[in-house]
Amino acid sequence: MKPELQNLIDLDRERVLVAHIASLLAWDQETHMPPGAEEERAEQLAWLEGSAHEKAVDPRIGEHLAALGCSDSNPGGDPSLDPDARAFLRVLYRTYAREVKLPADLVTETAKAQSLGQSAWVRARSENDFSAFRPHLERILDLKRRAAACLDPAKKPYDVLLDLFEPGSDEAQVRRVFDPLRKDLSSLLARIRSRPQVDDSFLRKPCPKDAQTAASRYFMELLGYDLDRGRLDVTAHPFTTTVGRADVRITTRYDEGYFLSSLFSTIHETGHALYEQGVNPPAEYAGTCLADGASMGIHESQSRMWENVVGRSRPFWSREYPALRAVLGEVLSGVSLDAFLRGINKVEPSLIRTEADEVTYGLHIILRFEMEADLLSGRLAVQDVPAAWNAKTRDLLGIEPPSDAKGCLQDVHWSAGLFGYFPSYSLGNLYAAQFVQALRKDLDLDGRLREGDYASVLGWLRKHIHAPGAALLPNELCERVTGKPLDAAHFVDYLNRKYAEIYGF
Amino acid sequence: MKPELQNLIDLDRERVLVAHIASLLAWDQETHMPPGAEEERAEQLAWLEGSAHEKAVDPRIGEHLAALGCSDSNPGGDPSLDPDARAFLRVLYRTYAREVKLPADLVTETAKAQSLGQSAWVRARSENDFSAFRPHLERILDLKRRAAACLDPAKKPYDVLLDLFEPGSDEAQVRRVFDPLRKDLSSLLARIRSRPQVDDSFLRKPCPKDAQTAASRYFMELLGYDLDRGRLDVTAHPFTTTVGRADVRITTRYDEGYFLSSLFSTIHETGHALYEQGVNPPAEYAGTCLADGASMGIHESQSRMWENVVGRSRPFWSREYPALRAVLGEVLSGVSLDAFLRGINKVEPSLIRTEADEVTYGLHIILRFEMEADLLSGRLAVQDVPAAWNAKTRDLLGIEPPSDAKGCLQDVHWSAGLFGYFPSYSLGNLYAAQFVQALRKDLDLDGRLREGDYASVLGWLRKHIHAPGAALLPNELCERVTGKPLDAAHFVDYLNRKYAEIYGF
Repeated sequence: MKPELQNLIDLDRERVLVAHIASLLAWDQETHMPPGAEEERAEQLAWLEGSAHEKAVDPRIGEHLAALGCSDSNPGGDPSLDPDARAFLRVLYRTYAREVKLPADLVTETAKAQSLGQSAWVRARSENDFSAFRPHLERILDLKRRAAACLDPAKKPYDVLLDLFEPGSDEAQVRRVFDPLRKDLSSLLARIRSRPQVDDSFLRKPCPKDAQTAASRYFMELLGYDLDRGRLDVTAHPFTTTVGRADVRITTRYDEGYFLSSLFSTIHETGHALYEQGVNPPAEYAGTCLADGASMGIHESQSRMWENVVGRSRPFWSREYPALRAVLGEVLSGVSLDAFLRGINKVEPSLIRTEADEVTYGLHIILRFEMEADLLSGRLAVQDVPAAWNAKTRDLLGIEPPSDAKGCLQDVHWSAGLFGYFPSYSLGNLYAAQFVQALRKDLDLDGRLREGDYASVLGWLRKHIHAPGAALLPNELCERVTGKPLDAAHFVDYLNRKYAEIYGF
Repeated sequence: MKPELQNLIDLDRERVLVAHIASLLAWDQETHMPPGAEEERAEQLAWLEGSAHEKAVDPRIGEHLAALGCSDSNPGGDPSLDPDARAFLRVLYRTYAREVKLPADLVTETAKAQSLGQSAWVRARSENDFSAFRPHLERILDLKRRAAACLDPAKKPYDVLLDLFEPGSDEAQVRRVFDPLRKDLSSLLARIRSRPQVDDSFLRKPCPKDAQTAASRYFMELLGYDLDRGRLDVTAHPFTTTVGRADVRITTRYDEGYFLSSLFSTIHETGHALYEQGVNPPAEYAGTCLADGASMGIHESQSRMWENVVGRSRPFWSREYPALRAVLGEVLSGVSLDAFLRGINKVEPSLIRTEADEVTYGLHIILRFEMEADLLSGRLAVQDVPAAWNAKTRDLLGIEPPSDAKGCLQDVHWSAGLFGYFPSYSLGNLYAAQFVQALRKDLDLDGRLREGDYASVLGWLRKHIHAPGAALLPNELCERVTGKPLDAAHFVDYLNRKYAEIYGF
């Protein structure tokens, strides 16, 4: 191996090691940290982030990358290098070029604006006062435009931001996928609404935390989550975090009045964890940037596949429903498998994205995508956000937010500066549907699920989706696995078949 | 404030911050980390230790210390500096001078030898094969002698090592304290053994983990442990760790066949945590080396005071025994307060130090102290350790180890290179007894305990022992609080009174 390459691997591995340490501190903050420690924990995390940033912009990285022939037009470097090296260099070049292009004062200003924005958003939401949040949102948007201009002045700002979460994507590409999806989801929703609504009242029966914990543990292990290299804890908002190459942890939350929340949160996070545990770069690149997911969207494809395509399917529950009833105790007594399946697949337009069903979820995302594109381009002014939000909600979901708190102030993303993140959620559903179509060519998915053979399903995902990690861009992965670019038609087809059975049309 | 001083504070605070981060990782490793993560956790901890060491030997520290007039003969620097500054500089100078004197290759070699020594010790103990551990012990001793020679070639090696754990102490001073203690403990033990043994069989009744957890929580909160700035977890070996200025965590362990183990472990660690939570340096020195305990011995004085002087006393249990019985359920039914007090204070020579009572514990420590002194001076060869150990056990405790596993291989300290650490355990008992005598002049301790007024007791400790933190050396603290240097007579007096009542002589 060329010494520059070995050097880059060593430098990058140290950066990742520091990032993993920071992940542990962040995990502890949400799970176990005593409340009084908050202030110092922020200092500790800031120090670790500073160290990781220092390592990310180490000038030796730039020198070695140049020596190996990496450039904007050829991030993988010298074509004579082996494919693994080129894959590693491409990811590293991408990160390095991004980090060095952002001036330190812009990074600091942005961190400060987002921190102030977060507090302002919490207050604004609780007081239903968009005007108090407005100047913060304007400031954050301005800083995001400046960041985008630093990263690539030749591109539209939103294109630059989308690429941060879905490498290789831009507004036009997302729009090509979302525009037909918008029509198809709306028409499916109309068909569903023309049918009698299903009953899901039995899902609100009280269910003790201990029973839900037992269910969480049962399903995470059942699906193949290796608890020698992970664990389950409880937090206000469920998440997955990677604390080490062999230490991927998930969290869930328990609502004793709605057990479905923990059940599907756990399966969702298990999907993320299975991906992280399955990333398998060549040994010499272990612990580097190559040992990471391909994108937020691909990550979400794995969590949503297990949560929805498997976890809300008839074949899965035809096998597992008795186990769920046994572990939850009395709560599902008298509820038939058919009633349960209808209940967990109920479709109904609602105001809050995170509580949306599989059909309306995509419409929530399209709303945010369209608004972000308009905000970044300047077509929409911040002061007009509430009106635009409400109009789009009427248009897409047929309902009207009674307040901005349940409308444009509901999500944390914009105050946290995460413009360009939302589309990944929906792209995840689309990737999942397209991947599953490819999987079905190799495996009888329904048969495997009916037999409880989750290992075969996971084995297929490991080989085709998980193992390559960050070596492939999302669109490259999609083409390699499915032979085609991303196309919402697979997802729409999946939904149409599924809901025809649930709602009987 | 002089700029050099402010600079030193900032540099030292960063070193402490990194050490706290490492403490969290070490805590997580013992409490929650999945088993598969062990290897990478070692890498993460090594990186943090490397970073902390880099910060500890930053050449700017040496320059600033010199500019402020600090030297071996005057570590506190320029006499015109205020007392807080001089206290800070003295501690910092001590650490810095030590760290820079140790050559990097010696540090690395020692870390490697100790790591190999640890594994060899675990194997040797489980196979009862001292000869397999012998070369490792020889190597570690050799490295310790070399380290001592680097730190202070003018001193005897054991004096240098003792000073690392008890700043200001040396072999002669410890011997002045331990020699009379040896005689007094032996004669007290003989008197006790001439009396009928007490019954403690009721302590071995089964007691479920949940009841023991409830008892742990009850007593830690009762004694004033602030759980907004701490927490309780479970580990194989109980410990206290400081993860932040406002984050001091303890652990305990549960043996369902011996509830006393968790009860007194929790009270012991609570004592350590109360000390850490009570260290209160001047605001400008928060988060520096001044915000630390005075020594291992002083730390142990706090844990043992709460565990033994309070936690094994009649006044304490005359109030709390009903609460303990209530929280533990059936296990103590039919056991009178008197029987309970006799049971928890049973004295009986035994082989294992960590299971020893208050009287024989000191004899275990004297054994190790004498052997360490002989080993470091070369009076004792490593090959003769088992025979010497067994002879001393016979001599001090009147019993004979049936194996080296239950003899000279029982403790982890030597394989971990911790020569000089053992005396602190016993010094803690002596400091505690002497401090309590001073406390009794200001407070009616027994009366306070009988009324459950632990806040007054803690208040006194906070003011006199905890608040100064590392600003005073252990002997300075002892003189300031008690007016006298450390003297084992107070401890012996305490034991004589106590056991005269228990054993009736």
